[in-house]
Parts: sequence; C-alpha cells; structure tokens
Amino acid sequence: MKAKDMMDKNFIYVYRDDTLDDVSKKMEKTRKFTTPVVSDDMKLVGWLTSLDVIRGLREGANKVSDIMHPKEEVKYLHENDPSRLAVIATSDKKLTNIPILNDEGVVTGVIRSFDIVKTLSALYDIKVSSIYEAMENELKGISWDELMEASAIITRRATGKHIRPEDYERKIKNSTFGEAIWGTGGLEKFFIGLIAVGELVIARRVGRARK
Amino acid sequence: MKAKDMMDKNFIYVYRDDTLDDVSKKMEKTRKFTTPVVSDDMKLVGWLTSLDVIRGLREGANKVSDIMHPKEEVKYLHENDPSRLAVIATSDKKLTNIPILNDEGVVTGVIRSFDIVKTLSALYDIKVSSIYEAMENELKGISWDELMEASAIITRRATGKHIRPEDYERKIKNSTFGEAIWGTGGLEKFFIGLIAVGELVIARRVGRARK
Repeated sequence: MKAKDMMDKNFIYVYRDDTLDDVSKKMEKTRKFTTPVVSDDMKLVGWLTSLDVIRGLREGANKVSDIMHPKEEVKYLHENDPSRLAVIATSDKKLTNIPILNDEGVVTGVIRSFDIVKTLSALYDIKVSSIYEAMENELKGISWDELMEASAIITRRATGKHIRPEDYERKIKNSTFGEAIWGTGGLEKFFIGLIAVGELVIARRVGRARK
Repeated sequence: MKAKDMMDKNFIYVYRDDTLDDVSKKMEKTRKFTTPVVSDDMKLVGWLTSLDVIRGLREGANKVSDIMHPKEEVKYLHENDPSRLAVIATSDKKLTNIPILNDEGVVTGVIRSFDIVKTLSALYDIKVSSIYEAMENELKGISWDELMEASAIITRRATGKHIRPEDYERKIKNSTFGEAIWGTGGLEKFFIGLIAVGELVIARRVGRARK
C-alpha cells in the first residue's frame, strides 16, 4: 500500500498571502486543525495549524506567511512512499496530518491520523470465520465440521472450558481478528491456537488415510 | 485492552471561567488541538477545540463557557470500555481525541488518534520470525531448519521464484507482520501460506514416523 492509496484527496489549502481572518474561517468551516500552504502551482511551501492561527490572531499578525512553518520544518511524504511511513511518522512524531507530494513537489493529498486508524482497524475487523474459511479451502480433504470439532478440542485443552463445536462456530462468526488477538493474549498466541487446530485435523486426516 | 490502558494520563484541561487568552496560550504551549472542560472536581462539563477558540477570539468572546461544546455533544468513553470502542469512534466519527471518564464522571485521561495508531501499528511491528518461533515451539518434533525449508518450497510454489531456506530466514528476520500482510495481499493469504507450511512439515514428520 502506497501513501497515495491512503491519502485524502479532498483537502483544504491556503496561500502565503491569505489573511488570517479568511484562513481561520476556512479551517473552522471545514473542521480542519491543519492545512498545507501552497504556491500558485500547488507546490508545498509551508504548513499551518490552528494553534499558529490562534497565536497570529492574538499577536495581530495579518498574513499566512507571517505565521506559517516553512517547508523545511514540515514532515511530508511522496505519493509512492510506502503508507507505513505515514503510520510510523504519525506514531513517533505524534502528527495528526501529513501532506503528500508528487514528483514536482505538488501537494496531491493529506494523510490524516483517523484515516490511518481506519485502515489499520480494517484489518482487525476481519471475521475470524473468514480465516477458517481460508483454512478449509487450503487444507484439502478437511471439512468445516472437522475444523470446528478440532477447534473445540484445542480450546478445551487450552482453557479447560468445555465448548461444543457449534458454540465455537457461533463464536468465530461473531468475533473479529482484533477481538481474537485481545482475547487470546496476543498475535503469537492466536497463531499457536490456529496451528494446533491445523495440526490436529492433519493428524486425523493422515490417520484416516492409513486405515 | 481497556480504554484506561490506551489513554494518556498527561492531558491538559480548562475550566468554564478561564479566559480565551489564557486557554489559547495553554493549548499553544502544549501543542494540543483540543481540551476537556472540567468542573472544580474534575468532572467533564464540556469540550473545546482550537477552532472554537479561533472563532471565539475573532468574535470577541471572553470565556470558555461562551464557546465550549456542552457535555451532551461530546463523545466520551468510560475507563473500562474496550479500547476498540475508541478505535471505532476515531475511525467513524473522525475524532482526534476522546476524553475518558471514571464512574464518577471525572476525566482520568484522553485517548488521542496517534496513541491508537501507535497501539495498532505495534501489532504490525511484530517480526514474522517471532510467529515462526511460536510455530517451532508448538509443533513438537519440527526443527527450525525444516520450517525454513518448507517455507522456501511453499514460496516457490506460490510465486514461481526460487528462494533458498537461508534467504527465507533472512527475510522473516527483517520483515514485520505488517509488511508480510501487505506483501502477500492480505491477512487471509498470509495465513494460507503459513498453513501450507505447517501442513508440509507435519506431512514430512508423519512420513518420517512411518519409516
């Protein structure tokens, strides 16, 4: 996934010569805490936050150029950079928005922290049952019922709790990967459970083949 | 994971009677776009953003109470709510910050969008090799070298590319779960690959046992 696949192409921008009054109204109207400052040909020249505008208004500044952060101070990414660079920058530098540029230095989008949250959480929202469906498709000669039965056995071994295959099936149809990871205590533990299930059904299949 | 495990306990807050001038300086100094408004006993009574402050300064308002959003309009969570509710709210409502309350309605923390990004991305940052280490520990009688060999075979089958076991080992030691998911084309596909590896090593182990 590239930065351009995650960025919002609907972003506001302002010019160096815009008045603080106009800019503050634009930011308020669109509920944006930050905005790129661009040249006439849409190249990034600076960055402005609502906190800069507050300071500017209080201190009697007039224009964007009086209060903006120049480009050298701005964290930006290229369209074709991996989107995880935006994730790292957001997480490490506590940024809420990152401007994205093309080869010419033109601003083509902005990656916002909640866009990142949306993308990352989409992973968590995958139903556990869809992972089991992938297992069923991959493991030839293994039926869905065998998978549910093996999972109930593995769960009983791990937790001591008696759970029927049909209970297990209902559980994975209603729970997401994120819930499963938090429920089992981490990604590795979730994998270990799945591997144990796979091992059990494969051992049983081999057992059948021998008869 | 609960909201209280994800929230930042170092947050700023303001009172209803604070002047906009003081509040704007506090927000600027701490680089915060939003702040809870609290009563004398720290109960949430409202919410203020830097955009509200801008409007207030422009329109000549004096106090926080003139421009704040009352509690009824504020999205907040309880300390013991699952943290994924904060993820959902951030993603769906495009919020950057969510106040967290205890049983008495007292603000005890704030969850920020970049805290969420940090937590979610930590999952992605797990090295693929640690998942293999979990596999090695779980699958009794299977060595690390057998896992690498099986992985090289499965990779060749899936991609047509010849890769040696030692290349594979170097790859998983340098790449994270997040990169692997993006690289393979999604969580299910990543699982399918792992399952295929598991199936192959188990089949080989069974083959050895038969001899």
